[in-house]
Amino acid sequence: MSFTNLSLVSQTDAFPYADVDPAAYLARVNTYYQLRVAGHDYALGYVLPSVAEVFRGTPGWDLDDAERILTLSAGSDADSRSAAVETSLLALRATGHFKVLDKWRGELYAVYGRDKELLFRVERAASPLFGVVTYGVHLTAYTRDEVTGEIKIWTPRRAKTKQTYGGMLDNAVAGGISAGESPFESLVRECAEEASLGEELVRSRVKAAGTVTYWYVRDERAGGETGLLQPEVQYVYDLELPKDVVPKPGDDEVEEFYLWSVEEVQAAMARGEFKPNCSLVVLDFLIRHGILTEAKERDFIEIVSRLHRRLEFPTL
Amino acid sequence: MSFTNLSLVSQTDAFPYADVDPAAYLARVNTYYQLRVAGHDYALGYVLPSVAEVFRGTPGWDLDDAERILTLSAGSDADSRSAAVETSLLALRATGHFKVLDKWRGELYAVYGRDKELLFRVERAASPLFGVVTYGVHLTAYTRDEVTGEIKIWTPRRAKTKQTYGGMLDNAVAGGISAGESPFESLVRECAEEASLGEELVRSRVKAAGTVTYWYVRDERAGGETGLLQPEVQYVYDLELPKDVVPKPGDDEVEEFYLWSVEEVQAAMARGEFKPNCSLVVLDFLIRHGILTEAKERDFIEIVSRLHRRLEFPTL
Repeated sequence: MSFTNLSLVSQTDAFPYADVDPAAYLARVNTYYQLRVAGHDYALGYVLPSVAEVFRGTPGWDLDDAERILTLSAGSDADSRSAAVETSLLALRATGHFKVLDKWRGELYAVYGRDKELLFRVERAASPLFGVVTYGVHLTAYTRDEVTGEIKIWTPRRAKTKQTYGGMLDNAVAGGISAGESPFESLVRECAEEASLGEELVRSRVKAAGTVTYWYVRDERAGGETGLLQPEVQYVYDLELPKDVVPKPGDDEVEEFYLWSVEEVQAAMARGEFKPNCSLVVLDFLIRHGILTEAKERDFIEIVSRLHRRLEFPTL
Repeated sequence: MSFTNLSLVSQTDAFPYADVDPAAYLARVNTYYQLRVAGHDYALGYVLPSVAEVFRGTPGWDLDDAERILTLSAGSDADSRSAAVETSLLALRATGHFKVLDKWRGELYAVYGRDKELLFRVERAASPLFGVVTYGVHLTAYTRDEVTGEIKIWTPRRAKTKQTYGGMLDNAVAGGISAGESPFESLVRECAEEASLGEELVRSRVKAAGTVTYWYVRDERAGGETGLLQPEVQYVYDLELPKDVVPKPGDDEVEEFYLWSVEEVQAAMARGEFKPNCSLVVLDFLIRHGILTEAKERDFIEIVSRLHRRLEFPTL
């Protein structure tokens, strides 16, 4: 089994495009319910009908079957809406309605409106139920040989015991951005927690390099319900490490770090060993650094575009 | 008058998105005619009704008003189709039908199908009539201060006498890719022609950095008919130049090269002095190099995505 780079992208950016494949797009969109907040006439995400159904009759929520809209009607500002969302989710968690809620983290994600205003906060584990855009940071840590210029990439393997994507390969550092946290501060924190990279080193050497955006559809490997929609924005960073700095797992989530040549990384990607969204961050890195070019990659143009999907929902 | 970065992107990536704004998208798409090649049931571009009308009754072309499709029916392979297209365009040029054909260059662009096969070649000046995807190379040449790390960008001003976008600022090197030419060889050639940069220097130092893709709608500054559609793929390259290498105009298309700080470049962009698509290449450069980040740019996520639009037509 060998995966092309485009097939890796398609696994993660899995939702159809409205212009490229309008029939497939409409078939999907017309199946789901839009998630809205009262007073805002646009979708913040798409919700599976089986999920929307659970909110029928729940205080603070309105379900419009004709228009296929689930509206959060409780609250009039971010704090009161967030409280209403938490109340509903805690009740659903108590009754064991959704498997994804078994992984409650006590960590809040932010959902924004068209004016980039905070509309409400939602428990991280629950965000895929609503299909809202979530935000994260992904770091590629690498070394560059002083003589040959050869790049090698620090590649961690996730602990086999990790509930999601156990045993798969990852980016050097990756994590979600909590409500109220900036991408850069989130990155600095994760670098210490996940790779034992010191704050001074990270602050002085890391380089921001844009975003990777895609629309993921959750499968078995993500755990919990399948088919939930997860449009994601990952702020990507590069960190060229001196030879004497070796990332070390800072918690029990990472088994081991490998320092791999680009060829070794690409071979592991082709074997499907990377956590799906992490292979997209690797591809973006290889493209930005001129390692993967149109001369070597038949699907180059489509891949570059799909690593930077324009999401149809408001983003920060 | 001051332009935000997002407004610069919107000027160049001007065609509506089907998912973000379905009403605007459909209003446009339902106005145009699809361009197709016989035996291939998908659009290669969109054609203005006023352009499609001219092909009514022309040998080798079929116009379907009900389905709004202009089909190139002549020929059965790339060579015979290209010959038919040339015959039609030469006749239209002779009768003065289209202003864009007054700028006939004798340079052929390639149009590809879904299997990345060459379908036909078309005179460069005529490609916007058909709305097909065109390909180019854009180079950002820059210096990096050894001590401070400060980046300065070599910025040429187009000759005031140039017919299109005369007097506007440009990327260091930019050019279209002719049928049969590779992006890299095109870049090497243009570097010599436009900036007097030697082949050895370019081949050894230049770095590929992906693509910038967008869907342009031609306005007065482009010359010729307005409203013609121009989806474009620009292969982008970075070239860090030693301090003693100074780009020089190699022909009369460039007036002068400036070595500008990032602040000077950004100020000129905000004044609208850059040729529209060139400001997108600058933005992509600033983002990839960690100079423009989400902390400084309110519309960061949308900008990164729209610099890499997924085009709905087949690409190479």
